[in-house]
Amino acid sequence: MPQELLDGRSSDPALMGWMKGNPPPPERRIVPSRADHMRFPMIRWSYSNMRQFLPTVRIAASGKGSPLPRATRADVAEVRFVPTGQADPIRFEESLVEGFTDGIMVVHRGEVVFERWFGVTGPETRHIAFSVTKSFVGTIARLLIDEGRLDPSNSVSSILPELAQSGYGNATVAHVLDMTTALDFSEDYGDPSSGIGAYSAALGLTPRPEGYAGPRDLCSFLAGIRGDGSAHGAKFTYRTINTEVLAWIIARVEDKPFATVLSERIWQPCGMLGDGDLIVDEIGTPFAGGGLNLRLEDLAKFGEAIRTGKLPQGAIDAIRGGGDPAKFDPVRYPQLGGWSYGSQWWHSHNRNGAFSARGIHGQTLWIDPAAEMVVARFASHPTAANGANDPWSLPAWAALAAHLKP
Amino acid sequence: MPQELLDGRSSDPALMGWMKGNPPPPERRIVPSRADHMRFPMIRWSYSNMRQFLPTVRIAASGKGSPLPRATRADVAEVRFVPTGQADPIRFEESLVEGFTDGIMVVHRGEVVFERWFGVTGPETRHIAFSVTKSFVGTIARLLIDEGRLDPSNSVSSILPELAQSGYGNATVAHVLDMTTALDFSEDYGDPSSGIGAYSAALGLTPRPEGYAGPRDLCSFLAGIRGDGSAHGAKFTYRTINTEVLAWIIARVEDKPFATVLSERIWQPCGMLGDGDLIVDEIGTPFAGGGLNLRLEDLAKFGEAIRTGKLPQGAIDAIRGGGDPAKFDPVRYPQLGGWSYGSQWWHSHNRNGAFSARGIHGQTLWIDPAAEMVVARFASHPTAANGANDPWSLPAWAALAAHLKP
Repeated sequence: MPQELLDGRSSDPALMGWMKGNPPPPERRIVPSRADHMRFPMIRWSYSNMRQFLPTVRIAASGKGSPLPRATRADVAEVRFVPTGQADPIRFEESLVEGFTDGIMVVHRGEVVFERWFGVTGPETRHIAFSVTKSFVGTIARLLIDEGRLDPSNSVSSILPELAQSGYGNATVAHVLDMTTALDFSEDYGDPSSGIGAYSAALGLTPRPEGYAGPRDLCSFLAGIRGDGSAHGAKFTYRTINTEVLAWIIARVEDKPFATVLSERIWQPCGMLGDGDLIVDEIGTPFAGGGLNLRLEDLAKFGEAIRTGKLPQGAIDAIRGGGDPAKFDPVRYPQLGGWSYGSQWWHSHNRNGAFSARGIHGQTLWIDPAAEMVVARFASHPTAANGANDPWSLPAWAALAAHLKP
Repeated sequence: MPQELLDGRSSDPALMGWMKGNPPPPERRIVPSRADHMRFPMIRWSYSNMRQFLPTVRIAASGKGSPLPRATRADVAEVRFVPTGQADPIRFEESLVEGFTDGIMVVHRGEVVFERWFGVTGPETRHIAFSVTKSFVGTIARLLIDEGRLDPSNSVSSILPELAQSGYGNATVAHVLDMTTALDFSEDYGDPSSGIGAYSAALGLTPRPEGYAGPRDLCSFLAGIRGDGSAHGAKFTYRTINTEVLAWIIARVEDKPFATVLSERIWQPCGMLGDGDLIVDEIGTPFAGGGLNLRLEDLAKFGEAIRTGKLPQGAIDAIRGGGDPAKFDPVRYPQLGGWSYGSQWWHSHNRNGAFSARGIHGQTLWIDPAAEMVVARFASHPTAANGANDPWSLPAWAALAAHLKP
């Protein structure tokens, strides 16, 4: 079957038999030197097994975390919603396979009311979170700001002199945190010549081309970023490199590897059930913009910790304040009208005050304070950009919230 | 200081500052594409952090393991012994730095009586075990033989038809298990043109040379191994590739990835404290001959499980039976007179019936049944071959056993 015709059901990685057998037959192998691990439909398997393809470091759990209580509700599967641009409603459960979901957990008032697993993904799987990782980084930055260890008005170059000559030279921590830097760097996942392609080669996420002479670590790459000539702070532009700079700032301020800070500041306080895997470059720099792999329930636990104030309230309040909707780009995000980006989180500013962490290919952490609901979802959608699955997922979260809200 | 003059103290990786800083300064980086992670003195850091350099899979712990009880005895540090070929005795504790020890644990009657950590290695560190891994593989083979799931008299090719045309074509499982295969493959860690160099390139443990056109996975490499013209079974010759074949046999017989079998058969029954990291090649084949990274206490727990019969007794008895000393090579192992190799374990056949798992650069699991003692040690000795540290370690284990034996 031509790959472009594979849907959520026919691309099931267990069904397709990726990496099955000892060794797997040649036609079922996912080979990182061919970049198979980043191509559909192989991503349906690889996104649940990234440490097998790339170097990683351990994000240490305390070993004392407990599972979220279960209170399964059969009615959740039956919630119906109309996908954006469609005429007919669809059952929530039915929408999951359509959306190339690998695992999903709906938590209401701290209890897991709905949970489904697909393909090769299960409770112990460490699935890649992609840019959901950014919201972990932003949350740590907010914790440090709340403690007075980091000043958002400080210049990046006062903390990282290595970036003084780069486009970050005259940016502040706040510009980086809210992604309002003005840089000559494009992030188009469909364009191999975009900045994100060069970034991926520096990081080693994808194989480097023959004769590659570019940077071989993230810090060198970041030092080469130029400004776009305009002033920082005017508008939000989504650029993963901002998160790399933010994680670098955090490591420098704390004088510890970012992985250690992530364990101390998030993993242990949240009582995560298992270690996480964080992808690193050749010299151990974390892929903080998208390289976290974790258990789905641990993602849900992170959402619950934010929702219930298990992390310090000052930091949570600052996160929940959101970004400035006036700086948001309505042309680039037609489905996210009225939203903002702040503290590395996406804010809907809807009536329920819902905000979310979003990663390519459908990774989601959706926190709806009014509905007392958290949704954690891993997916391996064939299209990287979330515009492809938002028509299904955003109405789904809204319908779930309406159903569960008291 | 010239690297060849660095001793156990001056090569301390924390002191040398390897990978310290965010990012580490260029002169303190360990870069896998330069093979730094396999060169002294960088190995003093890298051997405690291998997953950061290489792809790995998780060996899942149950999460229910408990630490060994502690009963620290100050007298153990004071045990004295005379290193082979030396005139003067040395204190046990003093010998540890001399031996480039990273961590050591002495367990007597199930209690940890002595424990020391050095450099960057600590209780949660997953340190590479190198060929100590082989004894895990051999133990699993013995478990399967004990259950009748694997017949040692069966031919390798009846289980792995892929190897029918190789030098393994007419070998049996027993030949592989006891390493009495007759193959055209040399394992000299000092010679880059030896078979072990080609093996390392196929595995991806070290960077492949420019224009490399050889095998890119272990199974393809193994299929290319030729016999040496003599008959299998006549003598013991240490070859890591035998363990790779054995792990492949285990995966095929169990129809599961080797990592899953290792978790089910060893990690969970032994109540390991933490997950292990197993290095894999480009298509996920485990580096079963030496790629296990685990906590030192989990290595000690494995030893205790073997010593106390926590694993099935039939398998343990078969392991403890040892190999045939008449097939051992006294010329190659002048310090191991009277020993044998059997079931992927090294057997001293001394009065205490001590046997051990041994890995390059000083990795050791020493089990002394009569002294009711287990010693687990991780090290990063500059010389790969254990002949370099045996003059210190073998008399040390003997002195400890004499001291602790009732």
